[in-house]
Amino acid sequence: MNILVINCGSSSLKYQLIDMKTEDSLATGLVERIGIEGSILTQKANGEKYVVESPMKDHTDAIKLVLDALVNDVHGVIKSMDEIQAVGHRVVHGGEKYAKSVLITDQVMKDLEDCAKLAPLHNPPNIIGINACKALMPNTPMVVVFDTAFHQTMPEKAYLYAIPYELYEEKHIRKYGFHGTSHRYVSLKAAEALGKDIKDLKIITCHLGNGASVAAVKNGESVDTSMGFTPLEGLVMGTRTGNIDAAVITYLIKEAGYTAEQVDEILNKKSGILGVSGVSSDFRDVEDAAWNRNEHRSILALDMFAYRVKQYIGSYAAIMGGVDVIVFTAGVGENSPEMRESILEGLDFLGVQFDASANKVRGKLTEITKPESKVKAFLIPTNEELMIAKDTLAFL
Amino acid sequence: MNILVINCGSSSLKYQLIDMKTEDSLATGLVERIGIEGSILTQKANGEKYVVESPMKDHTDAIKLVLDALVNDVHGVIKSMDEIQAVGHRVVHGGEKYAKSVLITDQVMKDLEDCAKLAPLHNPPNIIGINACKALMPNTPMVVVFDTAFHQTMPEKAYLYAIPYELYEEKHIRKYGFHGTSHRYVSLKAAEALGKDIKDLKIITCHLGNGASVAAVKNGESVDTSMGFTPLEGLVMGTRTGNIDAAVITYLIKEAGYTAEQVDEILNKKSGILGVSGVSSDFRDVEDAAWNRNEHRSILALDMFAYRVKQYIGSYAAIMGGVDVIVFTAGVGENSPEMRESILEGLDFLGVQFDASANKVRGKLTEITKPESKVKAFLIPTNEELMIAKDTLAFL
Repeated sequence: MNILVINCGSSSLKYQLIDMKTEDSLATGLVERIGIEGSILTQKANGEKYVVESPMKDHTDAIKLVLDALVNDVHGVIKSMDEIQAVGHRVVHGGEKYAKSVLITDQVMKDLEDCAKLAPLHNPPNIIGINACKALMPNTPMVVVFDTAFHQTMPEKAYLYAIPYELYEEKHIRKYGFHGTSHRYVSLKAAEALGKDIKDLKIITCHLGNGASVAAVKNGESVDTSMGFTPLEGLVMGTRTGNIDAAVITYLIKEAGYTAEQVDEILNKKSGILGVSGVSSDFRDVEDAAWNRNEHRSILALDMFAYRVKQYIGSYAAIMGGVDVIVFTAGVGENSPEMRESILEGLDFLGVQFDASANKVRGKLTEITKPESKVKAFLIPTNEELMIAKDTLAFL
Repeated sequence: MNILVINCGSSSLKYQLIDMKTEDSLATGLVERIGIEGSILTQKANGEKYVVESPMKDHTDAIKLVLDALVNDVHGVIKSMDEIQAVGHRVVHGGEKYAKSVLITDQVMKDLEDCAKLAPLHNPPNIIGINACKALMPNTPMVVVFDTAFHQTMPEKAYLYAIPYELYEEKHIRKYGFHGTSHRYVSLKAAEALGKDIKDLKIITCHLGNGASVAAVKNGESVDTSMGFTPLEGLVMGTRTGNIDAAVITYLIKEAGYTAEQVDEILNKKSGILGVSGVSSDFRDVEDAAWNRNEHRSILALDMFAYRVKQYIGSYAAIMGGVDVIVFTAGVGENSPEMRESILEGLDFLGVQFDASANKVRGKLTEITKPESKVKAFLIPTNEELMIAKDTLAFL
């Protein structure tokens, strides 16, 4: 039983073929520059890399090449397309309609189109990818797994902004939250690692990558998360500002002469770790500048990042009436022991007894608090693709 | 030794004459509709009200009438202007230059003008009030007490936004924080009530009025606060939205066709408790609608308000490494036992043992946690005027 997982962007496409019996990844691949000169597919399988440089005018061409690569005589991992029992598609925005993954029907496709105005950068390429796949594999069941779905359990007081209520009713302006598949995956893993029922746990999951968000997961349900109407809100990110006084935006427009589009560009692409450090949006570059060159703005950028995560941990403990487990995942969460330490520093009052030596680890599931710690902290590598494949499997 | 405290708005002026020996207020007054038809002064002194309806073309006229009222044969409280030893002026914005109150000099006046672009609604009327006062009392020492000053001790990681660093350097965009005089006053009072040195305490002060903010006061210094570049950020307020995804602002401009001015107006004047409840910006009206008419949106507005305060308490405990005292002050903080209870509910994990019966009180200094509570909570009436007068006295 193999499931193909597809995450389709506007000019790129990530895929993974997963054997659901073992939950092993058979092949992972990335297609870049779809519809642009220099299209390229890179697949990793059986420990080797297979590169195909070939023009791809659209996503249908790209998916055709993906299927070819998977069944390739030399570099492939399956004999024919029939060995793909289903396809799971990552879709960014499910609006308020989808609190769970769903089997693709015409109605679902229509709903995705309706949601596109809430995620104009993400949903349209997701839809194109699904349509391309459907054209090539018309008889294969397909499932969409939404980035927003896990957070649909948030209570009203958490997801509403204090704006005129009509703006919520008419324009659907509210907090949706993102990274839901990752928060769900690592919270389930955390319960498993503790040998406890997730229904009995208060978990704070910190998905810290170039995009970053925190979620409060109480009794297995997301009750709040740091990203909002869009992925701009919340933590300091690689290039995104996260929380900021809304009046800064109108100030930049009214007093500094920027357009709304320019402000969007600044806050989404030129802010965050990049904007503060002036060095890079990549944490490794900024850590290098901070630690090896002692650059003040890089030290500051890392401090600000940790500070904001720490604030969310306190905040989410408060709304859940405490916390049992804190989980770190994604690029920075999995690979920066220093950042994890910086975030957990001074949380002894919550019952966190940090284990500095256990924390000296990257990329594997590890308990990073002392055995006697009342609040546990874990590094748990995320696996959104596996979560998508599992959701897809559930429909077969 | 009497000090006159003046808080000057664009068409209104609040004043209070304080006897510094007893710290008693001798007279309080409000002038409304300055420069508008129907100007009126209302003074309260010796338990009676004195109303003067008289045209006032500008703030100089208004202050002249204030002085007349104070020395009035029948309704006054002093014999002559000579009995006013100094004047303390509330000024909203001191920028990064003023971390303390300051004796007014020509340089100070120039700095206030420079700060005016950061507080275009507030600093200009403050300046007009000071100039009017100086014209009438040229030999009386005058002091400015800034709303922002107390928060100038925030560390960089707390006051910077994760925007391009140049926007901070060139346009001074950062978190300033407001209500500083109130946060300072009640944090000092809390230390006094506990019989402890403020330098040994971690205090969270919740100034909950129509404008509302929370501050983290560690060892007597503000280390973070919820208001930001302007008083829009942070808590849900009477008519202000508080925290919101910055992308909502550009979405409203780009997709919904609003201007930046209209968005400012919506977020500052039509949001918050008013926008969510659809009933009023006054908490008493919303509590009435919630409790007596069971109106969903009013219940929600109150829930959202409490929820946001609770989040800040958790957040500020996290950054201070714990909390010793939580203080409630200002209109709602002093007068709504239900709101205080709602905020402190579920914070047992922090060591808060709420005392529901002690909490049944309004407007007077009261410990509202049980004697054995590890974290103490207090209702402490604020007194910004007295704090301003004390700062003023320090210069004499």
